[in-house]
Amino acid sequence: MPEKAHYGLLKGKKGIVFGPLDESSIGWQIALHAYREGAEIAISNVATALRFGNIEELALLCGNAPVIVCDASRNEDVDNCFKELKEKMGAVDFIVHSIGMSQNIRKQLPYEELNYEWFMRTLDVSGLSLHRIVSYALKNDAINAGGSIVALSYIASQRNYWTYSDMGDAKSLLESIARSYGPRLAKRAIRINTVSQSPTYTKAGSGIPGFEKMYEYSDLMSPLGNASAEECAEYTMTLLSDLSRKVTMQNLFHDGGYSSMGATIPMIKLAHEVLNDRELAARVGLDDVSPST
Amino acid sequence: MPEKAHYGLLKGKKGIVFGPLDESSIGWQIALHAYREGAEIAISNVATALRFGNIEELALLCGNAPVIVCDASRNEDVDNCFKELKEKMGAVDFIVHSIGMSQNIRKQLPYEELNYEWFMRTLDVSGLSLHRIVSYALKNDAINAGGSIVALSYIASQRNYWTYSDMGDAKSLLESIARSYGPRLAKRAIRINTVSQSPTYTKAGSGIPGFEKMYEYSDLMSPLGNASAEECAEYTMTLLSDLSRKVTMQNLFHDGGYSSMGATIPMIKLAHEVLNDRELAARVGLDDVSPST
Amino acid sequence: MPEKAHYGLLKGKKGIVFGPLDESSIGWQIALHAYREGAEIAISNVATALRFGNIEELALLCGNAPVIVCDASRNEDVDNCFKELKEKMGAVDFIVHSIGMSQNIRKQLPYEELNYEWFMRTLDVSGLSLHRIVSYALKNDAINAGGSIVALSYIASQRNYWTYSDMGDAKSLLESIARSYGPRLAKRAIRINTVSQSPTYTKAGSGIPGFEKMYEYSDLMSPLGNASAEECAEYTMTLLSDLSRKVTMQNLFHDGGYSSMGATIPMIKLAHEVLNDRELAARVGLDDVSPST
Amino acid sequence: MPEKAHYGLLKGKKGIVFGPLDESSIGWQIALHAYREGAEIAISNVATALRFGNIEELALLCGNAPVIVCDASRNEDVDNCFKELKEKMGAVDFIVHSIGMSQNIRKQLPYEELNYEWFMRTLDVSGLSLHRIVSYALKNDAINAGGSIVALSYIASQRNYWTYSDMGDAKSLLESIARSYGPRLAKRAIRINTVSQSPTYTKAGSGIPGFEKMYEYSDLMSPLGNASAEECAEYTMTLLSDLSRKVTMQNLFHDGGYSSMGATIPMIKLAHEVLNDRELAARVGLDDVSPST
Repeated sequence: MPEKAHYGLLKGKKGIVFGPLDESSIGWQIALHAYREGAEIAISNVATALRFGNIEELALLCGNAPVIVCDASRNEDVDNCFKELKEKMGAVDFIVHSIGMSQNIRKQLPYEELNYEWFMRTLDVSGLSLHRIVSYALKNDAINAGGSIVALSYIASQRNYWTYSDMGDAKSLLESIARSYGPRLAKRAIRINTVSQSPTYTKAGSGIPGFEKMYEYSDLMSPLGNASAEECAEYTMTLLSDLSRKVTMQNLFHDGGYSSMGATIPMIKLAHEVLNDRELAARVGLDDVSPST
Repeated sequence: MPEKAHYGLLKGKKGIVFGPLDESSIGWQIALHAYREGAEIAISNVATALRFGNIEELALLCGNAPVIVCDASRNEDVDNCFKELKEKMGAVDFIVHSIGMSQNIRKQLPYEELNYEWFMRTLDVSGLSLHRIVSYALKNDAINAGGSIVALSYIASQRNYWTYSDMGDAKSLLESIARSYGPRLAKRAIRINTVSQSPTYTKAGSGIPGFEKMYEYSDLMSPLGNASAEECAEYTMTLLSDLSRKVTMQNLFHDGGYSSMGATIPMIKLAHEVLNDRELAARVGLDDVSPST
Repeated sequence: MPEKAHYGLLKGKKGIVFGPLDESSIGWQIALHAYREGAEIAISNVATALRFGNIEELALLCGNAPVIVCDASRNEDVDNCFKELKEKMGAVDFIVHSIGMSQNIRKQLPYEELNYEWFMRTLDVSGLSLHRIVSYALKNDAINAGGSIVALSYIASQRNYWTYSDMGDAKSLLESIARSYGPRLAKRAIRINTVSQSPTYTKAGSGIPGFEKMYEYSDLMSPLGNASAEECAEYTMTLLSDLSRKVTMQNLFHDGGYSSMGATIPMIKLAHEVLNDRELAARVGLDDVSPST
Repeated sequence: MPEKAHYGLLKGKKGIVFGPLDESSIGWQIALHAYREGAEIAISNVATALRFGNIEELALLCGNAPVIVCDASRNEDVDNCFKELKEKMGAVDFIVHSIGMSQNIRKQLPYEELNYEWFMRTLDVSGLSLHRIVSYALKNDAINAGGSIVALSYIASQRNYWTYSDMGDAKSLLESIARSYGPRLAKRAIRINTVSQSPTYTKAGSGIPGFEKMYEYSDLMSPLGNASAEECAEYTMTLLSDLSRKVTMQNLFHDGGYSSMGATIPMIKLAHEVLNDRELAARVGLDDVSPST
């Protein structure tokens, strides 16, 4: 990666990033950018991620950042994580949540046939984990007054994406938890927001069936194109910095304008083409889905 | 049209519908359905519409409904309209606003090159007209306590549709006016809402360049398909009836679910096809629009 | 209750209502109104509700409606419920979900100290139950093409209400599940929506600490005042009827305009009074919450 | 003002700020902060503002910034403004729009009795001016690829504030224009967003009747308290910087969390107090507004 501009936006701050796995992870980029912006960083993920990812490499790139093993769906783990964090670094100024997992998506169960234990697990790992992290940070007095909490989300919480399945529901829950926690955190001038990011080529993203095509579609529909993991990290820097101290309980779209698009001319013309081209229609499986043709 | 079910939902009520032109108009269907549901109806449009449309036919179908000539962008006209209405029918229980016009769209000016006099005229005719109608109805004591006001809108007020131009901005204004007027009307238990309707094959709609393709796109993206003018009229009956007395200041999507869709599998696959098929890409003009490929 | 107007809106239809407990329940009013509008009705609730509520009375009022015992958080129960329903009535045309429960609220745990097992249970009972009901209705072929599904929600899914705790998060999940299921149901022309209802004096509502004051606040802020359980039932009739066949995946506010209000003059003046009246400020506990005074 | 942290976020950039009047203006603070962050700045306002404000002082504080007289409701003025700008500074990298005016508010006309010429003027000055500025910037090739446009808005575009009158409608229009222009600007990688700011003590704000009380109310309802003009300027820096290059067509709330609040406990308790205290009720004029008590 070429050297990029940095501004010292997080000089003197400390933070912890939950969820980085490898270079493709948004969390990875956020940790790296935060370090470059002057922050002292800790990194956390589950034990298996530490085995299969390159988290030690990230730790090195972030000035020998402490790595804390933690399954954010387990109370004790999260409690211990913040105890360990405090010992190693003291209380932090920001927390980034980039955690999500759906067994229903991995196994490609249709939405009508979700496994409910897995559904509950999706909600626990991808949604409640944010509540748990915030609560144990507070209990351990491990987040400073004036701090900032950011969690990563996706527009499937507002609109339907066929293949995103119960993860869309989990993101709705996640965004709601951020809103619910907001006023409680405000008493200590801590803010909490979610960033609703474009589809991003990460290991997690690629697990979603047909992810590549979803990525392409989103890119075509976004006036500025999809936002990358790196760009997401850059944007997140502004939310962790002191320049956004009055922004809280917001879901912020970082998506090249996608969320405000109705239709582009090419997509409109494509719809016309496919309706008049049986072979093309068959290729995209239109007979199965369109209810009125 | 075959005989349809009706329920007497508007029995004993009176109302006026602004904007019907011919059988394709949503306003036409609303007038007709309101009459069938038991209401006494008046109809209004500008003088030219009376010459070029079939409004006399509609008046006959609605039991010799009075037809009142009125340009809703002129204060005096609207004032006189409600005076005439009161004389002929007394005060009404509902008002329907189905008025919109953009010279910028007719002349197909690009958004970057809008004529500002026409832009102001679009806002006046398509937006302020609602304010004017409500205000003169109140001034003339021409709307009863407990009444209902409905204006027709389109999702271009929330998201961008390339070809809908300044009409999207006018619909934003229209929806805001409905919200702004809401609390004032509530003092007399009158409610006001907008219905955000699917693209509909009306004379007005067809004036938008490429309307047909926009219609097809919307139909493909709507889980239940586009809603028709007739279906819109049916839905509007519920909002004019006593069954929705506590619904006010809302923008209600009547669009087959379109507004809550992110992407359908066929559209996602289409995006993939077009990115891998130069000939198809050229046909839909993709080179001009996509910023990141 | 005095005899009210009815229109035969649901003539020839069948439906099942989950969740009525006693006369204060929204579900109770919906069942009753649906019966009056011509529908054949079944009623369902958990066993304890049958013991402590007056469900047998409701069944009588609805023409000896079958009562089916079902815990909507248990797969087997829901499966059996639809099997029993089919035996007794055949497939239905509508399903109403009015189910919610939070142990965290009952025990008045602060949001920072939620019990996570109870949180998961809140999500399961109040959110996943909708998914379960829809899925088993489909699996048992117990809902007809063209049918309508309605679930009751509350604006705490979009904005923070201090005392509504994890129930706000559960309502976010509920509304998301409705959106996620929408396109799948559309293939059979079935629609699914949530009604976001004013605070309502029900046994469930009253369980929320300080409910009465929340009710008063909402009533003061709603231009048309809070909507009652009866009014909610009337509105729901329109969504179960054939007049709304193109409305799906929507969250519909039935709240007297509350959701579109920023501030009313009395509330603005009240804020001024309390800031200048120490005694009043103390009475409402303002010192604890306001961060900037 | 004490020396504050700055980061060089806008180093090497040029920009123009429309609308600063005096030190209380948000535009003033934005110009000042942009200068401190390293930008070269031009300032613009109408001739009367130059006479009655302290714009020359601001120009000095911003390193002898050029001051360009321009009435943004006049095509020729705006055209000339960008011609002059190009001569003096060359093309710019950002444009800030902080312009709004309502004669209907100044004259305190009730919403039911708006003067329509003034209403149109409100829309022209406060809404269309953004379109005009962007269009003439493009026509004069006066904004660089990769640039950023920010306009200031207020939540009255989404929810009703009794006293904000036609300005709420104008803000709806403004936000829509930003969305409509987004995809056109994206072709040159230019982004456009609105910042929905807390009520702010500016000369413009103070013109609204009862502004002070509205400010207090909003402050009480915002978990982090109202955001100040200075904080708004800090936040705007992030949107003008390269760190937000994929954020476009968004309306971003900078309001201490206000927009996501349903109710706070003190406000809920206040509602209770006022309903049980006739003297307090009379003081806040509750008899006039509450429809259901």
